[in-house]
Amino acid sequence: MKLEVSVRVVYEVISSSTLILNVQPVKSAGQFLVEEHMELNQQLKMRELFSISGEKRFKIIEIPDAGNLMIHYRALVETEVRAVDAEHLDDIPIGNMPVSALSYLNPSRYCQSDKLYKFAFHKFGHIDHAFYKVMAIRDWIYTNVEYSGGYTNAQTSSYDTITEQIGVCRDFAHLGIALCRALTIPARYYTGYAYQLQPADFHACFEAYIGGYWIIVDATKLVPLNGLVKIATGVDATDTAFASIFGNLQFVSLDVTANLIDTEFRYIDQYTAEQGYTYM
Amino acid sequence: MKLEVSVRVVYEVISSSTLILNVQPVKSAGQFLVEEHMELNQQLKMRELFSISGEKRFKIIEIPDAGNLMIHYRALVETEVRAVDAEHLDDIPIGNMPVSALSYLNPSRYCQSDKLYKFAFHKFGHIDHAFYKVMAIRDWIYTNVEYSGGYTNAQTSSYDTITEQIGVCRDFAHLGIALCRALTIPARYYTGYAYQLQPADFHACFEAYIGGYWIIVDATKLVPLNGLVKIATGVDATDTAFASIFGNLQFVSLDVTANLIDTEFRYIDQYTAEQGYTYM
Amino acid sequence: MKLEVSVRVVYEVISSSTLILNVQPVKSAGQFLVEEHMELNQQLKMRELFSISGEKRFKIIEIPDAGNLMIHYRALVETEVRAVDAEHLDDIPIGNMPVSALSYLNPSRYCQSDKLYKFAFHKFGHIDHAFYKVMAIRDWIYTNVEYSGGYTNAQTSSYDTITEQIGVCRDFAHLGIALCRALTIPARYYTGYAYQLQPADFHACFEAYIGGYWIIVDATKLVPLNGLVKIATGVDATDTAFASIFGNLQFVSLDVTANLIDTEFRYIDQYTAEQGYTYM
Amino acid sequence: MKLEVSVRVVYEVISSSTLILNVQPVKSAGQFLVEEHMELNQQLKMRELFSISGEKRFKIIEIPDAGNLMIHYRALVETEVRAVDAEHLDDIPIGNMPVSALSYLNPSRYCQSDKLYKFAFHKFGHIDHAFYKVMAIRDWIYTNVEYSGGYTNAQTSSYDTITEQIGVCRDFAHLGIALCRALTIPARYYTGYAYQLQPADFHACFEAYIGGYWIIVDATKLVPLNGLVKIATGVDATDTAFASIFGNLQFVSLDVTANLIDTEFRYIDQYTAEQGYTYM
Repeated sequence: MKLEVSVRVVYEVISSSTLILNVQPVKSAGQFLVEEHMELNQQLKMRELFSISGEKRFKIIEIPDAGNLMIHYRALVETEVRAVDAEHLDDIPIGNMPVSALSYLNPSRYCQSDKLYKFAFHKFGHIDHAFYKVMAIRDWIYTNVEYSGGYTNAQTSSYDTITEQIGVCRDFAHLGIALCRALTIPARYYTGYAYQLQPADFHACFEAYIGGYWIIVDATKLVPLNGLVKIATGVDATDTAFASIFGNLQFVSLDVTANLIDTEFRYIDQYTAEQGYTYM
Repeated sequence: MKLEVSVRVVYEVISSSTLILNVQPVKSAGQFLVEEHMELNQQLKMRELFSISGEKRFKIIEIPDAGNLMIHYRALVETEVRAVDAEHLDDIPIGNMPVSALSYLNPSRYCQSDKLYKFAFHKFGHIDHAFYKVMAIRDWIYTNVEYSGGYTNAQTSSYDTITEQIGVCRDFAHLGIALCRALTIPARYYTGYAYQLQPADFHACFEAYIGGYWIIVDATKLVPLNGLVKIATGVDATDTAFASIFGNLQFVSLDVTANLIDTEFRYIDQYTAEQGYTYM
Repeated sequence: MKLEVSVRVVYEVISSSTLILNVQPVKSAGQFLVEEHMELNQQLKMRELFSISGEKRFKIIEIPDAGNLMIHYRALVETEVRAVDAEHLDDIPIGNMPVSALSYLNPSRYCQSDKLYKFAFHKFGHIDHAFYKVMAIRDWIYTNVEYSGGYTNAQTSSYDTITEQIGVCRDFAHLGIALCRALTIPARYYTGYAYQLQPADFHACFEAYIGGYWIIVDATKLVPLNGLVKIATGVDATDTAFASIFGNLQFVSLDVTANLIDTEFRYIDQYTAEQGYTYM
Repeated sequence: MKLEVSVRVVYEVISSSTLILNVQPVKSAGQFLVEEHMELNQQLKMRELFSISGEKRFKIIEIPDAGNLMIHYRALVETEVRAVDAEHLDDIPIGNMPVSALSYLNPSRYCQSDKLYKFAFHKFGHIDHAFYKVMAIRDWIYTNVEYSGGYTNAQTSSYDTITEQIGVCRDFAHLGIALCRALTIPARYYTGYAYQLQPADFHACFEAYIGGYWIIVDATKLVPLNGLVKIATGVDATDTAFASIFGNLQFVSLDVTANLIDTEFRYIDQYTAEQGYTYM
């Protein structure tokens, strides 16, 4: 797929602040950045950083003075969603998992998997194979959790969502991750741009480590998987926020777009038994 | 049933303290106290109180000096478990409920029903009639929550138990109450002596207000309903603890007994569809 | 004081519902209802109830049909804020407290005093006399908790507010109550109309049981104590909400007023050391 | 310092399991492993791993059969606690922090710094310089939190400890970390062997990133800083547990030792104003 993505964010700067901005698509095997452009309405000191594991790149922007700050970023991205045959997604014993996957078994701020063992085991423990467990988790969340804004906030965690059963994409992802980890399946948070997301915004879903691949899973079923452009993966929303503010900035507005440049588009769904394969 | 119940509790008094003791069976239509006797190993000032609604009587004991305190209470109780035809347990609209039932719709310290609306509605909302909802709640708890000591403590609430799915009678009762209230069925905590409880101890279950009766419900299924001797009902464990300590008492030991005096005993189970009736 | 209070609340009724309305000032020694009037834009079945302990009266309104519902209530109330000499507010041992006070020592949904013992003891345990402990609690809350709307919601409890230190009158009251109970001082939630509250709304504060009186305490310091008209007291916000909805009502608007009818008014503050007395 | 450390852990293996063992001191500038030896009472497949950032090394042990498992590890370690002049610990702006420090600003499972902003700011916000903020945090925890076992468990987090004010070294460390992060000071969990710890066990404290150094901080004040041997640093107890169990192992016993090999030892305290320097 060829997609053009963009974000325009505006802040009112009250006093000297620092902003960590995490909106640039990551460069990976399945994602090639044809071009990108970041524009600010002020001349500011900016530093580009990469997380050690290469799953995120972000900018630290120092804003010395009060005033209006507008940041506009856009990129042209070539993505490739690779199909994986579900039959080949063998379970990997802990002993053979790489370090890069093992750390995604730990509970985190929003994904308290240590509190969900019994629930996860009761609901999904009887299902053979990690992949089908994950598909059952996705379907259970989709069926039981109401997608609705305004009920959850920055403190809502998977421990709330599992009982309160309402939330947005962030909450769906956190719950999916927590349930996977409770079943000893490494899982990580995924943020990105999403073609056909209504209303347009950043999107969140998750990846589960199965058969040696990071399989993408979206329990909201809101968008086609081949319309996603990955910005970052991380332990949960704590290390993948599109903006982290240190200082005194007032949020004014956010506009996100994700447009198809290709002329053809065939909606790719997660997985069906007939289809037999899923995606990474 | 004629039952003899007793409790012997020992404390090491470190300094001047006050103890509120709530171990005496309540006097009610279904429960007659043939005789009772409380004995202390010290001469202490004691005051007997009754809760305003008559669901509890308790003693306030003032202990001026350090030393060993032993309290021994026993009672001979005649109880009558009354059968209620499930078919006659009509739902009562809020508008017709008495004040004494309405207050048991509110969330409480351990029964945060306000956080369980969606869960309760998804699981039990489709079931016709309050009575069958309550039976389904009881069965769901019995099936999904593991009865096991040592995992929960005095801070564990229904919001924990619904996800962590392990606990003791107290936790089973709190979750049952919270789910009832979330479905607009008044429910209250019940503490008592229990014949055949292994190991012997105080027991907790709950009562749901259905069809004008307070129907007794025990999601642990550990004891026969006709072996119960009611001590108190209340909002949850906060107002029905067998002992509330103000000062510095060290708990030493607790021995509870509940023996059948009648020569015959037929185990009474909560409710089965064939049986067609339940109990209050 | 002579005050005229009123409330106009509008709902959009989606389907058959029941509403418990708790807006009528309670009748008590310090509060005389000269007249009151409730008006609805529909002819509805209404039942008036009194809580057993007489601290609340409320109406149950049955609304059979969808449509617009407007309720308008107003009352003319004569109130008397009685001064109590702080020097005479002796501590009352548990053993001498009446049953009606003892129940307000228990933790509740929003006032988890059982989790605040150490905090309360560290901060306030060294202070002599319950009254001065309560004044220190009030001042600590006033100083440390930011009064600000939009951060807390219906699930926010004292356990959150003690750390997050932001909230509205409801949160201030819950924290005050929890800290009192943690120090073995009975405390209860107070809702009412408040003269000079900006913007006009219902107000919440609390009462602590000291020296045999229910002393009124307002940690927000937003309004004069002699401008309050009591609607109800209860364990916390769970049993004193101005409206409890069962069914499907959409809230449209709420207008509350509290006007002085007397020509003179002298602002009465809680308590100062010079002043030497407080209020009930 | 030259220290000999050891751990002997025994499990009863119920069925095929995997164990991640994290007991080996990390190799770093301040810590040299003279020799180490790990012995098992069974011949087992073992894999050694290093975390990407080099702050931890651990072994994955696969245990195919039921039976008794005994692991004995000992090491001879040469450590050097480096003094840092407090005057030279300048605050580092976010914009100049390395990626390896930035990630330790995020909230984590046990260190929900996002919920502690106001508390941290009220208590410590007025103090100049990150270093003195951190010393004040250490002293506040030491003064207000009671060191006592048996009250907290594997689910206890800093959000509990800040109010409940009781716990063990793990809880002290989590609270210190959360408060640092809330004040935009990167902080990470530290586990190790500790000379003179009574009773002997693993110890936990934390490191704060100040002036370009990871300064070690121990709010328990239980042990000399120069008696520590570092095993790992991580986000919190989730990624630094000495053992993570996947499968069915029953813990039997744990014995930890840390002995001084040097003949001389001078107790090194964290920091005093007279002393003027601290340690890393």
